[in-house]
Order: sequence, then structure tokens, then C-alpha cells
Amino acid sequence: MRTFDYIVLGAGSGGLASAFRAARHGARVALLEPGSLGGTCVNLGCVPKKAMWYAAQAAEDVQRAREFGFDIAPGALDWCHFVARRQAYIERIHAVYRDRIREAGIELIATRGHLRAADRVDAQGETLCAPHVLIATGGRPRRLATPGFASGMVSDDFFALRECPHSVAVIGGGYVGCELAGVLHALGAHVDLYARSVLLSHFDHELSDALADSMRAQGIGVHLHAGIPDVRREGGALHLDQIESGEAAPYEQVLWALGRVPNSDDIGLGTVPLALDAEGHICTDGQQNTSVPGVYAVGDVTGRMALTPVAVAAGRRLSDRLFGADPEAHLDYRNIPSVVFAHPPLGAVGDTEQQARSRYGDAVRVYRSRFTPMVSALSDHPQRSLMKLVCVGEEERVVGVHLFGPGSDEMLQGFAVAVKMGARKADLDATVAIHPTSAEELVLLG
Amino acid sequence: MRTFDYIVLGAGSGGLASAFRAARHGARVALLEPGSLGGTCVNLGCVPKKAMWYAAQAAEDVQRAREFGFDIAPGALDWCHFVARRQAYIERIHAVYRDRIREAGIELIATRGHLRAADRVDAQGETLCAPHVLIATGGRPRRLATPGFASGMVSDDFFALRECPHSVAVIGGGYVGCELAGVLHALGAHVDLYARSVLLSHFDHELSDALADSMRAQGIGVHLHAGIPDVRREGGALHLDQIESGEAAPYEQVLWALGRVPNSDDIGLGTVPLALDAEGHICTDGQQNTSVPGVYAVGDVTGRMALTPVAVAAGRRLSDRLFGADPEAHLDYRNIPSVVFAHPPLGAVGDTEQQARSRYGDAVRVYRSRFTPMVSALSDHPQRSLMKLVCVGEEERVVGVHLFGPGSDEMLQGFAVAVKMGARKADLDATVAIHPTSAEELVLLG
Repeated sequence: MRTFDYIVLGAGSGGLASAFRAARHGARVALLEPGSLGGTCVNLGCVPKKAMWYAAQAAEDVQRAREFGFDIAPGALDWCHFVARRQAYIERIHAVYRDRIREAGIELIATRGHLRAADRVDAQGETLCAPHVLIATGGRPRRLATPGFASGMVSDDFFALRECPHSVAVIGGGYVGCELAGVLHALGAHVDLYARSVLLSHFDHELSDALADSMRAQGIGVHLHAGIPDVRREGGALHLDQIESGEAAPYEQVLWALGRVPNSDDIGLGTVPLALDAEGHICTDGQQNTSVPGVYAVGDVTGRMALTPVAVAAGRRLSDRLFGADPEAHLDYRNIPSVVFAHPPLGAVGDTEQQARSRYGDAVRVYRSRFTPMVSALSDHPQRSLMKLVCVGEEERVVGVHLFGPGSDEMLQGFAVAVKMGARKADLDATVAIHPTSAEELVLLG
Repeated sequence: MRTFDYIVLGAGSGGLASAFRAARHGARVALLEPGSLGGTCVNLGCVPKKAMWYAAQAAEDVQRAREFGFDIAPGALDWCHFVARRQAYIERIHAVYRDRIREAGIELIATRGHLRAADRVDAQGETLCAPHVLIATGGRPRRLATPGFASGMVSDDFFALRECPHSVAVIGGGYVGCELAGVLHALGAHVDLYARSVLLSHFDHELSDALADSMRAQGIGVHLHAGIPDVRREGGALHLDQIESGEAAPYEQVLWALGRVPNSDDIGLGTVPLALDAEGHICTDGQQNTSVPGVYAVGDVTGRMALTPVAVAAGRRLSDRLFGADPEAHLDYRNIPSVVFAHPPLGAVGDTEQQARSRYGDAVRVYRSRFTPMVSALSDHPQRSLMKLVCVGEEERVVGVHLFGPGSDEMLQGFAVAVKMGARKADLDATVAIHPTSAEELVLLG
């Protein structure tokens, strides 16, 4: 039996970040990971998704360049060529992690760990012991038990594609469905998207509507309040049952994007029964403690804002608390910004208008700008951007910033800092604009 | 003689903004403009420049799309086609301004005004009278009296081009020179840039160096500390005298980018002698008052940060003070953000490292990140971005933010709000990152 100061289950974003920080504080760390370093984000999430988004943007760029007057003929993407670049980029991230793990003196064990006690982990027959154990095992795409489910693919399978399908039904209107529908459409697939309710139901409704309008204008079939179909293979094509199908039906591919479930079912919780929520997420308090002392959890397995930087920040602060003599260290989960890489992207921090009105009633004042950004105005099919500030009270404290349009992805971070600092509308007004940009609209709201 | 509450000389960004705001406060306004509505920004500056920057970006986008694996052959820009789009966009801005002027009840007089007294303006023979007169006549490119100067063009002439020159010498390393050199290069010209000192000498030196390195890597000849040549036409080509010429010499075109001079020489200052600085800028105090009571100035004619949003903000606040019962209204000229639309763009707000060190000495702490953004890492010629935070004192107050890389243009505005609010480094650290973006680097600085 080997003893450590800290055992981390899972080398995704949260586990790695917590392990590195703990090692920096001098802890002896064991890091258990049966799969690829970097977890969902690096291998099956943020990184390959953003790479595909760039490829999709490139397709749109080429179209716009033609409209601008460049003498070019449109051509298809050699998907394999691009995927090779994408995977080479991911390989470089793996290499960086391997080097950092070695330099930090972290013991990397390439297997799945199973809890045997609060301070004990089984690692392929070997028992590891530590006073602190972190569960950072992440999540995976939700699968259904319906007969036709296996005929479709989940997002993990999307990243294994080596050519663009001719037609795809995307089932699910969350961020994964919206992002991958946009990529597939831009790269040449006929796409219908079926959402159980609206797109991005957690986002501000106006942004959700703007995205649906935009996707339709681009030629994606967007079917809201559509229910979840089953899938039937017939004559080499996939048919949707129990649903009114779109233009592209039947489909070459069906992509299920029904949300994600936590990886809490194969880590030994039969032996060490941590409290779980109804969906299997590990329950944590404000300092990432689980219901069992000495066992902690961060990231997607906890179900608390399943975002890489949240897992990273929570993991680092946990290690600062456990090993860095900072007993108050914890992540403040309020006002966490996030971006959806649609075409164009959306970004949001803080309350939606709907949340704010239910919390603050008539004290809410909303400022919005709808405008055609210059780059779009110069092209054949101008699209309008939408920006909203949600303010509260006489001092007009900014409780929400909501962006839809080109550049929203890079624009949001600074405003998120301002919101975190307690910005009032007057603070935005007092800042001189940067012209001509889209971002300046936010400091020029009337 | 007609009387008004407010006479505004010049319908550029500052004059228009001040006139509109005054009219909203109920003032009777006369607006005198001999040229096109919108002044430099709309007609010969920000707007056509940004449009050309988008065209240049499109050329780079096409190249990147090829590297990603799109089956397209590179083709040249039909410059005339694009210029027609650009000018149509500008015409729409003119139309919007004409409508707004009419709706606001502003008297637009299409002539140059000349001061005859502090409260009196001569407008093509007619005398106008008002207790408040604003000079917002802007500026123009600096011209030299040297024999060969007329063989070259200034930025105004650049916007009259109808095809891409084969080779260009750009003389001047300020923002106009850097921006237009980048556009010309991306659109197919062989470009050499000659700067008297370094590029963008008012910017942080590390950013200036990064831009020079980047331009060279792209194939632009960058010649620093080069002096100002004269130009000699010989055999249909332009030769630079008194200077070591670059690869592209001799040149089809020479573009002078030697800064700008104020339009203060033909507005009647012989009769009403306002105090001018050595370069002819009208001197103003913190509330835009000139040396003569009742006469005010905003924008490029004052030489105080020649940026459209500065003129707009100063003009609006002036009207709030004069007509809006807000006696303290004035523009705070500190911490004004600005962007240079190079390829990639640069952005800055607050002190450079050099300024901060001369002001605060050892109390300065600089955080920087050099990284290859994903979109660049996926292409054939990865370029590194650079971000710097300049902080002061134990609390690490952020006094400067300096950005170089894709997305800097849209990224800066929110951070400018945070700096205006007095952000400390800890405020950035407390904000959760948005992954994967470039902007997140600013909240993850070690």
C-alpha cells in the first residue's frame, strides 16, 4: 500500500488543475486516469469543438470573401486533413501535460480508481492511501435505452467522424446540439435540429430567439417543442419516429445531444456512499466537500456549472485550502461567464432578464442594442447582433450581460470582470468607446 | 442675421454628436459643414479603414481556409467591387445622419464657417449669431513641402484607389502607416514600411516590437529609425532618396503617413485669435473651453487623443453642460482605450510599462502572457499573441492593459470598463475564465 497526501481520480481539467496546485504546495499526489489526459475538454469537448468551430468559421469566411469580391470558387473541406491538424494540436496538449506532471513529481497511474474507504483507493489491484481524495471523474453524453438509440451518434462519435455527413438530425437544443448543428451546416451537411423546448433554455429568451432566427436564416431546420423521437434505420437511411420530420429527412446520421450524465457510477460509491442528487451528481458544499469527510469533488461529476474553467478554478482553490494554508479558499459560483460557440457565438454572464424580473420585479431595467455589425453589413446577408444589459435598482447595478453576434466570445471576459466588481450602468457609460467595434455598443446604450 | 443657441463648425463625429445632444436639450442648432457628413471617421478614416481591414482579413481567412483543408484556389480581390460595397455602406451612414439632422430640427448649412466674433460666424456671406460656438473642424493628413511629396499619396488618396498597387513604400510608423501597410500587404502589394523611430511609438514597447516582428514574418519590409526620404519619379517608378530602400524598391506608389494636422487655419482665427499650440491645435481646458469665452472646441482640431469616440464623448458632455443643466459635465481623458487595426490588431488602455515605471518606479509589477491562439496553432504559420497587465502597488491596481493578437479589438472594451472602475489584479483573478478563448489569458496570469 502506497501513501500520498492527495489522491485525484480523473485527469481532466479539474483533476489536473487541483493536482498541479497541490504539488506546487508540496503535496505528494497520485493522479489516476484510465483515458487520455485532459478529459472531456481536451479530447471530446471544448478543444476539438472549438477547432471544428474554426473550420466552420473558415467556410463562412470563404463565402464572405467571395461576396467581398475575391475571385475564388467555393470548395469543400478535406475533413480528414483538418481532423489530423486538430488531433496534432490535441497531442501537443497531451505532451505538455505529460511534461508538467513529470516536472511536478505527480504519480500518474493509468487506470480507473475505485474508492474503498474515505482515505483509500483501489488502483487495479494496488491500494493507495491518502487523507484527502478528490473525485474529478467528469461526465459523458446521456444515452437512452430506446431501441433505435444506437443507430445515432453522441458528441463523442461526432469527433470520430472522418467526413461530413450529407444530412443530419440533431436531437437536442442545448449548447452541444446548437454548436454541432452549426458546425455541420457550415461544413456542408443538411441539418435539422429538434429541441424539446427552446434553444439554450437557460439563456436569456431574447438571445435564444435570436439564435433560432439566425440558424433558420442560414438554412438549418429548427424545430422547437419537438419531443424526443426514436430512430429507425430503413433502406440505409435513418427515419425519426413520433415526430414531424424536417426538410432533410430521412437522414444519413442522427446526433443525440440530450445533455450529459456524471461519471459517478463506476468509482466505488457502493463502498463509500457519497450523497448524490437525483441525476447521480455528487453533492458538494461551497468548499467542494462531499458528504464524507476527506472526500471532495469538482467539475462535471458535481453538476455545478459543467464548464472547464469552473472545474479548474474549484480544483485550484480546493488545493489552496487543503495544502496551501488558505482555509477560506473556495470558488464563488456567482457571475460565471460562459460562451456558446454558435455561428455567430453567444455569451452571457449573470442573470437573464427573466431571472432578474422574477427576483427583482419592477426594479429591473433592461438596455438593449440590435445592430448590424460592419463586417456583416458589407456582406450579402446582413445579420443583426443583439446585446442586452440587465440592470437593477436606482443605481442600475449590472446583474446580467448577454451578447449575440460576431466577437461575443472574446468580448465577454472583460465585462465579466466588471460585473464581478459590481459594475453600475454608469461605469459602462463613463468608459470611452472603441470605434468601430461591436463591443462599443455596450458602453453606448441609451 | 439669423440667431441660434449653438453654432457648430464641422459635422464630423464630434460636431454631430454635440449638435444632436444640444438639440435634444432643446437648443436651436446651426451645423456648418462644407464636405461630407461624418467627417474623417466616416469618409476618410475609421469606417473605410475598417472596411479595408475586413477585406484584408478576408484574404488571410482564405489563406487559412486553404491550410485547414478547404479545396479552394487563392484569388485576388476585385478592388472596385469591394470599394463599391464600402461606399454603399458609407452612403447609408450619410442617409442616417441626414434623417437624424432633419428629425432633430438642426439647421444644416453646407458651407465652411468662419469666426467673425466670439458669437458670430460667417457662412458664405450670411452672418449667424449664437452665444455658444463649437469648433469641431477636425484634421487632415500632414503634407510636406518637399519637391517630391506630390508624387506620393496620403491616406485620403488611399481611399480613392480603385486597384491594388503592385508595390508601395509606406512612410511613417504611426497607426495610419501600420494599418494601411497591413491592408496593402494582405491584398497583394509588396510593401516596405519606413518609420522615423519605431512602430506605434506611443504604445508599449513590447507590443511595438511584437507588431514589427509579426509584420516582417508576414513579408512586409519594416525599416525602423529610417528618416523621411524624398521621392523621385524616374522611368515610371518612384525612388526613395536619402534612405536605404527595401526589397520592393522602386515603388509603384508611395504612401505618406506622417501624422495629421488640425484644420484651424481657415476658420477665421485671424479675426478671433484663439490660443493655439505649436502645431496649430486649439488649446482647450478640461471642459472644452478655448481661450475665448463662448467658443469651444472638441475632436482632432484640439489634438487631445484624436479618436472618434473621444470627440463624440467630449461633444456630448459639452452640450450637457451648456444646454442640459449639468454644469460639471466634462470628459475624463484618463484611461481611454484604443485599438490599432493591424493584422492582428493591437489594443491598449492606460499606462504602458514604460510610462508606469517612470511614474511609479519599483512599485510596478508586470504580468504577461505569450501564447499561440488556437486558430493560429491550427494553421501553417502560428503566430504568438502577447498580453500584458501593468499593475502598481501592493494592491496591484491595474494601470495598463496591452493586447496584441486576434480578437484584441473586441476584447479590450470590457477590460477598459474594469480599469476605469479601478480594477486590481485580484479582481481579474476572481473572475472565472471563458474557455477556450484568448481573452481568458488575462484572468489567468500567474
